[in-house]
Amino acid sequence: MRGRGELVFVGLGLHPRQVTLEGLEALKTSDRIYVELYTSYYEGFLEELKRLLGVEINVLSRRELEEEGGRKLFADVKRGLKVALASIGDPFIATTHRALLLEALRRGVKVRIIHGVSIMSVAASASGLFAYKFGRSATVVYPKEGILYTYPYYVIEENKSRGLHTLLLLEMDPERGVFMTANDAMRILLDVERAEGKGVFTEETLVVVLARAGTPTGKVYVGKVGRLISRDFGPPPHSIVVPGTLHFMERELLSALEGASP
Amino acid sequence: MRGRGELVFVGLGLHPRQVTLEGLEALKTSDRIYVELYTSYYEGFLEELKRLLGVEINVLSRRELEEEGGRKLFADVKRGLKVALASIGDPFIATTHRALLLEALRRGVKVRIIHGVSIMSVAASASGLFAYKFGRSATVVYPKEGILYTYPYYVIEENKSRGLHTLLLLEMDPERGVFMTANDAMRILLDVERAEGKGVFTEETLVVVLARAGTPTGKVYVGKVGRLISRDFGPPPHSIVVPGTLHFMERELLSALEGASP
Repeated sequence: MRGRGELVFVGLGLHPRQVTLEGLEALKTSDRIYVELYTSYYEGFLEELKRLLGVEINVLSRRELEEEGGRKLFADVKRGLKVALASIGDPFIATTHRALLLEALRRGVKVRIIHGVSIMSVAASASGLFAYKFGRSATVVYPKEGILYTYPYYVIEENKSRGLHTLLLLEMDPERGVFMTANDAMRILLDVERAEGKGVFTEETLVVVLARAGTPTGKVYVGKVGRLISRDFGPPPHSIVVPGTLHFMERELLSALEGASP
Repeated sequence: MRGRGELVFVGLGLHPRQVTLEGLEALKTSDRIYVELYTSYYEGFLEELKRLLGVEINVLSRRELEEEGGRKLFADVKRGLKVALASIGDPFIATTHRALLLEALRRGVKVRIIHGVSIMSVAASASGLFAYKFGRSATVVYPKEGILYTYPYYVIEENKSRGLHTLLLLEMDPERGVFMTANDAMRILLDVERAEGKGVFTEETLVVVLARAGTPTGKVYVGKVGRLISRDFGPPPHSIVVPGTLHFMERELLSALEGASP
């Protein structure tokens, strides 16, 4: 039995019907399925996944994965079980899963990776902007103890100075009920602008807001910050792309998407 | 009938069993399926897809999509058909499809986008490197009329100077039978190094070679250019990641992957 143990990282994509055939198969042939729902979010994902698979799914908390290092998972693998750890999107966008992968490789555990549709490529695709013109991405977080986190602002500046687009992910912590909206993210970046004053993110800045990107209710909004900041983008997750220099085809696509903006 | 016409862009993922449930459904409920296989490549993709779907699939050439602007597609949509245009990976990584999307939006055609697993996120995920530390990406192409294309070299330099990783896609033109290997790409970049002499890409440079990334036969190779340049990575597609500054967890993951390198 011992030699059979295996840990399969399964990326579920951004909504339940975005799971791949390969992912579905890996889940169905696993002895035990764990799912982690604290690094990403889609309302009702677990219920829809259960319905789709018709099997039991065990939810792992942040504490169990990060502080306890996935002890449960490795115990199951050691007992010879084929264990699936499922997560929304692609498995290795979140750092937590890389730590687990490293631990598995160190222990000599047999590992398989099933990729899923990720916000990292969907954002480029849905925004109408060229994928190869995206610079590094950043996450906008709420001020901690009154201190503004300026990193995303400087990432936008660095990318813009090279003509590159910036993908901004927004703070999300489902276990604590935190889901930053694009409105809050824009407010925070305007606060950073007031503090830093470099003209990087103002009411005149063109942005693309992606609401529920890659899902059936996904919507794309194009416009200046001053115009979009008070819009209702509907339920999270939201993300934002700040375009750099635009190629004429990108400009035309943004205009067409702006016209089609709901 | 007229109002029913619709154009659905379907990303198939990187191999046939990586299609999503949503994508499969969209293909099965389309009146006509076109597929484009000239911007990406996976051996036997069309045959496996036909087997999976049990329906007819029409292959569109580069000429039909680019020079004729997808005339066939739009004629079908105008006749009220639900038309799917499938492609490997995610629909909007290739510029061709963006041009078609723009044309569709201009004509007021009803459009739907079904995302697929893309090399843009898989490369970050499979390389063990943090996704948010990737700078812009570039494509390595063969010299044209004896002239070396230095752009990817300078993208690596720019990204490295900011501590960022670079994803290099390799020239591919299935219609002409061109599939650049990682070996050829490294040789070309060493040629550029000899011409430009900035020490950006040498035999001592650490690289991650991704062979058939995201597919069941996918393999990851980690090592210095001088050591990997003569390795046999198996069939294409290949891509390369040139790491920037490494976080200790990235360093450990690369070492573990290097140890696990086949």
